[in-house]
Amino acid sequence: MENTLKPMDAEQLREYGHKMVDFIADYYKSIESFPVLSQVKPGYLKELLPDSAPNHPESLQDVFEDIRQKIIPGITHWQSPEYFAYYPSNSSTAGFLGEMLSAGFNIVGFSWVTSPAATELEVIVLDWLAKMLKLPDQFFSAGQGGGVIQGTASEAVLVVLLAARDKILRKVGKKSLEKLVVYASDQTHSALQKACQIAGIVQDNFRVLKADRNSNYSLCPEVALEAISNDLSAGLIPFFLCATVGTTSSAAVDPLSELGKLSKAYGMWFHVDAAYAGSACICPEYRHYIDGVEEADSFGMNAHKWFLTNFDCSLLWVKDQRPLVQSLSTNPEFLKNKASQENAVVDFKDWQIPLGRRFRSLKLWMVLRLYGLENLQSYIRNHINLAEQFEQLIKTDSRFEVLSGNFVLRFAVGAPLTEEKHIKEAWKVLQDHATTLLRSI
Amino acid sequence: MENTLKPMDAEQLREYGHKMVDFIADYYKSIESFPVLSQVKPGYLKELLPDSAPNHPESLQDVFEDIRQKIIPGITHWQSPEYFAYYPSNSSTAGFLGEMLSAGFNIVGFSWVTSPAATELEVIVLDWLAKMLKLPDQFFSAGQGGGVIQGTASEAVLVVLLAARDKILRKVGKKSLEKLVVYASDQTHSALQKACQIAGIVQDNFRVLKADRNSNYSLCPEVALEAISNDLSAGLIPFFLCATVGTTSSAAVDPLSELGKLSKAYGMWFHVDAAYAGSACICPEYRHYIDGVEEADSFGMNAHKWFLTNFDCSLLWVKDQRPLVQSLSTNPEFLKNKASQENAVVDFKDWQIPLGRRFRSLKLWMVLRLYGLENLQSYIRNHINLAEQFEQLIKTDSRFEVLSGNFVLRFAVGAPLTEEKHIKEAWKVLQDHATTLLRSI
Repeated sequence: MENTLKPMDAEQLREYGHKMVDFIADYYKSIESFPVLSQVKPGYLKELLPDSAPNHPESLQDVFEDIRQKIIPGITHWQSPEYFAYYPSNSSTAGFLGEMLSAGFNIVGFSWVTSPAATELEVIVLDWLAKMLKLPDQFFSAGQGGGVIQGTASEAVLVVLLAARDKILRKVGKKSLEKLVVYASDQTHSALQKACQIAGIVQDNFRVLKADRNSNYSLCPEVALEAISNDLSAGLIPFFLCATVGTTSSAAVDPLSELGKLSKAYGMWFHVDAAYAGSACICPEYRHYIDGVEEADSFGMNAHKWFLTNFDCSLLWVKDQRPLVQSLSTNPEFLKNKASQENAVVDFKDWQIPLGRRFRSLKLWMVLRLYGLENLQSYIRNHINLAEQFEQLIKTDSRFEVLSGNFVLRFAVGAPLTEEKHIKEAWKVLQDHATTLLRSI
Repeated sequence: MENTLKPMDAEQLREYGHKMVDFIADYYKSIESFPVLSQVKPGYLKELLPDSAPNHPESLQDVFEDIRQKIIPGITHWQSPEYFAYYPSNSSTAGFLGEMLSAGFNIVGFSWVTSPAATELEVIVLDWLAKMLKLPDQFFSAGQGGGVIQGTASEAVLVVLLAARDKILRKVGKKSLEKLVVYASDQTHSALQKACQIAGIVQDNFRVLKADRNSNYSLCPEVALEAISNDLSAGLIPFFLCATVGTTSSAAVDPLSELGKLSKAYGMWFHVDAAYAGSACICPEYRHYIDGVEEADSFGMNAHKWFLTNFDCSLLWVKDQRPLVQSLSTNPEFLKNKASQENAVVDFKDWQIPLGRRFRSLKLWMVLRLYGLENLQSYIRNHINLAEQFEQLIKTDSRFEVLSGNFVLRFAVGAPLTEEKHIKEAWKVLQDHATTLLRSI
C-alpha cells in the first residue's frame, strides 16, 4: 500500500511556515483596520463553510483566502491596541516564537523522562520569576515547594483547592466532605465557585463575603473572622480562604497579611490569586501589593495576561508540593520509569488535572531572555502611565467620575500595541456616547 | 516615561518568525541524528543555565545557541520516526501552521462573543469529524448534542464524569455522593481514576474490573453486570461506566453495544474512550471497532495522538450538552453579554474545566483541509501496514511471541516520519538485545 502523504516533510514545513509568518506579520500590520469587536451574527460561519471535510487536499492559498474572508471577520481582536475589555491577553514576538518552538518539538511532557528539558526548564524559569517577584524562599524549588505552569488560573485554584480538601479530609475523615467551608469576597473570580462545584464542596458552604466601597472592595478580615466563627459554632470545618490581588471587576487588593494570619490561626489553606495584577509586582514600587504573600500556601499569577507570554501560561507556586501530589498522582504501569521511581525528578503530571502537557516554559523563557527584566518593568510602567493618562482625561469631563464598583465603565489598559493615541481615541468614543446619552434624557 | 520595548512589532515578528521556521525545519531534517530518548541525568539543566533572568535583552542568536546546546539534549524526540513508545503524538505541517495561527491571533475564546469564529469553527469541524466517524445523529450540533475540543482525554473523561455525577445527585440527593459507583476494566487509562479522585467519588467505589487474556483484555459484560448487581444489593448507586476502544497497554476493545445496553438498563452514564484507536475509525474497514457507539452518552478521540493534529486537541462529543453545562457553568456579571443571554450561541467555557481557551479548532481545520479525508485514511492504513510488517518480522524469530498483556514489548507505530526502514532497525535492536539476553542465561 502506498502512502503519498508526507505530513512532516521538512521542506514543506519550511515553505508553508514562511508563508504563515508573513500572514501573521501582515495581520499585525493591519490590525487597527479591523473593528475590535467582531460584528458577525450567531451562526454566520455555518453559512460560509461546507458541511463536510474535503476528500482531497486543498491548497494553502485557498485556506489563507478563507481565513481572510471568513475567519477574521469572526475574530474579536484581543491584540488590537484599542482592546480594553476583560483583561489584557498579551502576545509578543518572544511569546509567539516560544509557541512555535513548542509546536515544533511537539513533545508531551507529563513525566520528566518524556523530555527532561521540559520539566527542568519549567522549574528553573519559575524560580526566576519567583525571584523577580521576591516570593518567600519556600516557594522556590530548592525545598518542598516550587512553581508549575497551569493552563489557566481556574486550573490553578482548582488544584490547590483539591490539595487542601484532601489534606483536611485525611485529618477529619472523608465523611466530612459536606462540612468543609470555603471563604472569599464577592469580588473573587468565578473560577473559585467553579472549582468548588467540581470538588464537591456543598454549595451552601461557599461563603461569598461582602466587600463594598468602604473597603475599596477588598475583603475585611473582621468579616472573614465572623463568618469563620459562625461556621465553627455550627459544627462546620473552615478549610480554604482565597484572597485576590487585583480583582476582575475593580482590581481590588485583599489584605494578604491579616487574611493569611487568620487562615493560619484556623488551620486553613490560604491561596493568593494575583492572576491579573501580579505582573506589576516585578516593579519595586508595586511589590507592596503582595506584601503578606509569605503567609500564603499557594500563589498564582498569569503570565498570559500582562506579561507578554502568549495564552496559556498560568503560573502557580506552592510552599509544599506534597499535598498536590497526594491529590493528583496516579502511577499506572505504563508510566513507570527509573527516574520517577527513584524520586530523583519532578513529574508535573501530578501537579495538574490533565496527564499530557505542552512545553510551555519555552515561551516564558524566551520572553524573559529576549526582553530582560528592565524592559519588562518599563512595559508595565508604561501601561500604568497610560491608564493614569486616561484617568486624567476623565477628570476633565464633569459628566464622568472615577470610581470602582457599582455600575462602571471598566477600562483595562494592557495590549502590547497600545499607545497614547489609542487611549485618546477610546476616550473620544466614550465622550461621544455620553453626549448622545445625555441628550436623550 | 519612555517605553523602548516594542514587544509586538510586526517587522520583528516577521524577521524572527522566519528564523524560527528555518530552525524548526532544520530540526526535522536532522531529527534522526538524535538519540530518541534523552540521555541527560536529573538536574542537568540547572548546571547549564544562570539562576536569574537577565536584566537586559539577549539576542535571538544566543537563544538559538542555547536551544541547540542545552535544550535539545534534554528532549525525548516524540516526532522521530524511531519513536515507538507510549502512543503516537503526531505533529504535521498543517497542525503546526494551525498552532502558529492560533498563537498569532492569541484570542481567549471562552464565550462566543470573545471571537465568534473560534466557537463556530469548532462546532463545524467537530461535526465534520463526527461525519467521518459516522457517529449517531445525536452527537451532531444540530440538536442537544455536539462536539468540543478539550486539552486531553483526562479532561474529557473528567467533565463527563462531573456531568454524570451531578445529574444523578440531582435525582437522588447530594448526600448520596458517597454511594456513587464507577465501573471500568483494569485496562482503562489511569485518567479515570484521577477523575474519580477529583470528583470526590469514594475510592472504594471505583470498580476496577478484571479483564484478562481470555477476553483479549476487553471488559466482559457479565463481569460488569455482576459487579453492578452486588453494588445495588449493598445499597450503592451505579452511575458511570467507561468503555475503551484501544486500551493503553494492549489496544483492547471493550464490547460497546452490550456494555452500552447494560448502562442504559441501569440508568448509568456510558462513556466511550477511543482516545488512541478512534482515528482508525475514519477508514470503513475499521469503523466496526466503534459499533455500539450509538449507546454512548459521550465519546472521545484524541486528534493529537494519531490524526496529525499537534498536541493538544482532544475531541469530545456528547448527546446532550445540558448536564455538562449544568455542572460547569458560572455566570458572573463580567462575562454577561447579549448573545449569551439570548441563548443564541454556545459558550464553550461551560463545557470544560478552565475558563480561557485557545483557538484550537484552527489546527484541526487545517489538517482536514490541507490533507483531505482520503490522504488521512491512507496515512492510518500505512501505519497499520507497518505494524503488520513488524508482526511478520517477529514471527520469523522463534524467540519472540506476539501477544497482548503479561510482560510485553509494546511497540506503537504512528510517528509521521516512520517508514519501513525504521521498523526494521527497531526490530534489529530488539533482536540484538534478545541475543545478548539469551546468551547470559
